Amino acid sequence: MSLLAIGTVAFDAIETPYGQTDKIIGGAATYITLAASYFTRNVNLVAVVGDDFPQSFIQLFKDHGINTDGLQVKPGEKSFFWSGRYDQDLNSRETLVTDLNVLADFDPIIPNAYQNCEYLMLGNLTPQVQKIVIERLKKRPKLIAMDTMNFWMDVAMDGLREVMTMVDVLSINDEEARQLSGEYSLRKAARKILAMGPKTLCIKKGEHGALLFQGDDVFFAPALPLEEVFDPTGAGDTFAGGFIGYLASTDDVSFENMKRALIYGSAMASFCVEKFGTERLLNLTQAEIKGRVQEFVRLAQFSV
Amino acid sequence: MSLLAIGTVAFDAIETPYGQTDKIIGGAATYITLAASYFTRNVNLVAVVGDDFPQSFIQLFKDHGINTDGLQVKPGEKSFFWSGRYDQDLNSRETLVTDLNVLADFDPIIPNAYQNCEYLMLGNLTPQVQKIVIERLKKRPKLIAMDTMNFWMDVAMDGLREVMTMVDVLSINDEEARQLSGEYSLRKAARKILAMGPKTLCIKKGEHGALLFQGDDVFFAPALPLEEVFDPTGAGDTFAGGFIGYLASTDDVSFENMKRALIYGSAMASFCVEKFGTERLLNLTQAEIKGRVQEFVRLAQFSV
Repeated sequence: MSLLAIGTVAFDAIETPYGQTDKIIGGAATYITLAASYFTRNVNLVAVVGDDFPQSFIQLFKDHGINTDGLQVKPGEKSFFWSGRYDQDLNSRETLVTDLNVLADFDPIIPNAYQNCEYLMLGNLTPQVQKIVIERLKKRPKLIAMDTMNFWMDVAMDGLREVMTMVDVLSINDEEARQLSGEYSLRKAARKILAMGPKTLCIKKGEHGALLFQGDDVFFAPALPLEEVFDPTGAGDTFAGGFIGYLASTDDVSFENMKRALIYGSAMASFCVEKFGTERLLNLTQAEIKGRVQEFVRLAQFSV
Repeated sequence: MSLLAIGTVAFDAIETPYGQTDKIIGGAATYITLAASYFTRNVNLVAVVGDDFPQSFIQLFKDHGINTDGLQVKPGEKSFFWSGRYDQDLNSRETLVTDLNVLADFDPIIPNAYQNCEYLMLGNLTPQVQKIVIERLKKRPKLIAMDTMNFWMDVAMDGLREVMTMVDVLSINDEEARQLSGEYSLRKAARKILAMGPKTLCIKKGEHGALLFQGDDVFFAPALPLEEVFDPTGAGDTFAGGFIGYLASTDDVSFENMKRALIYGSAMASFCVEKFGTERLLNLTQAEIKGRVQEFVRLAQFSV
C-alpha cells in the first residue's frame, strides 16, 4: 500500500564521542522514508529544502524508490539546519544550532499522485503543518501516525491537542509521555494520552526499548543490546519509518501486526545507530534485516 | 531440589513519596527466601539476627516453609538495620542509616541438614562471607548464584573477584556491570565479566527489565509497566529469589530454562514493588503468580 511521509529534510552536523560530521543529510522525513523504503516501494515524500540542497542527496531518495514529487526546492533559500553534540553515554544531547530557514513558512503541497495514500506518517513538525496535510488529503488514509516532541508541548499545546484527535497512532518518548500526561507511571500516562484522541500510543524509550498501548493491551519491544552505539541521531524516526513501512507493506492494522511492526521498527533503529547519520540505512539488504529481526526473536522469546 | 540462601535478615525503615514505615522486616535473604518459597518447599536460610528480632518475624519464614535452622540469633546483640529514602521517581535512593550490628562479625554456620543442597543463592554480603559458605559445603551445589553490589567493588574488589571465579551465575545491576567492567556498552561489559568467572550473567535494569548473558546468547526479560510502584526495596532480591526458586523447582539449568526463571523472577519483583517492604510477598497465591506470568507473555510475545 502507498505511504505518504511528511517531515523535515535537512542538513545535520553531529558531534559524538566517536567523531563529528560536516553537513550531512538528515531530518525526520529522511530517516522515515529511507527506513520505510525497505518495506514498500510506494513511499511518497512531502518536504521542503532550499536550493543549497545537493542533487546528489535528492538522488539518494530516488535510489531507494522514494517519490520526491512532493519535495519542494525553494530557490534562493536555505535548507533547515540542525547541529547537536552528544555527551559521553549518548543518552543526552545539546542542540548547538537550529536554523529553520525554509521550514519557517513551510506550506506543504500534496501532489495529485499522492492522493489516496493509505498510510500517512506525520514526522515531527509544527502541529499546524501536520494538520494541514491531513486536511489536504481528499480521502482519509486508513492509518495516520504522528510523531511529535516536547518542544511543541511547550509552545503549541492547543494545536498539538487538536492534531492528536485526528490521528490513529501517536509516537513520543517516555519523557514526552510524562510531560503530556503529568503522570510518571507510563501505564497511567498512556491511559490519559489515549483519552486525548489516538487509539494507539507508542512510547519510545531509546536503549530501553518501546511500549505499544491500545485499549487495555500493552506490548513491549526490547532494544537490541549493541556492541557499540555510534550515533543515535534519527533512531526514533527510523523506528517510525520501519513501523509504518511494515504496516503499509502488510496492509494490516491489527494490534498483532502492530507488534510485528514495532519489532521491525526496532530492528531498523538498531542499524541506524551503528554509523553516523543515515549511513547505515543506505545499503541494507533484506537478508540483513531478516537476520536482525531474528536476533530480536532470540532476545525476547521464551516459553512458559 | 533443595535451595540454600544466605544473606541479610534485617530491620528496614523506608521512606517513599507514598509514605514511611517503622522498622519492618527486610534484608536480602528475607526477600530471596520468601520469593523462592512460592516455587519450592525446600528453602534453607543461613543468616544472623540479634535478640531484638521478634519471634513473629521468624514465624513469617516458618509460615512459608522456610527452614530457619541456619538463622543464628545472637543474645545481647542487635539486628542489622538499614534505613533509606527514595526520591520522587523512586529511581534513586539515599541511605540514611546503616547499622551493621550482628553483621559485623557474621560467621555463617551451615547446619548438617543443609549439606547436599543442590542450589545455592549467595545474597549480597561481604565477598569473604560468600566465599566461606561455598567452602563450608562438603559437596559443590549444582548451581551457585551470587548477588553483589558496587560497595564491594569499591572496598573488597580482590575478594569479589575471587568469589566470582567460584560461582555459576552473577547478578548485578547495569551501573554495577559498567563499574565492574569499565565498559558502557552492556554487551561489551557482559563479555568482560563472563571472562572473570561466572558462566552466566544477569544484568538487572530495574524498571527497564533484565538481561541474561551466557556465551553468545542474550535474553531480555521486560519489566511489567505498573500502574503504581510503591516501594522498590527488595525488588532485586525478590527477582533473584524467584529466579533461583524456579530453577530449583524445575531442576534444569539450561539457558532455555533460565529464560523462564528470569520471567518468573521478574513477575515476583513486580509484586514486590506494589506494596511496602515484604507485604505483597507474604500472601501471594499460585493463581496470582500464574496470572502475572501470563501478563509477561502478552507483554513480550510476538510472531514474525
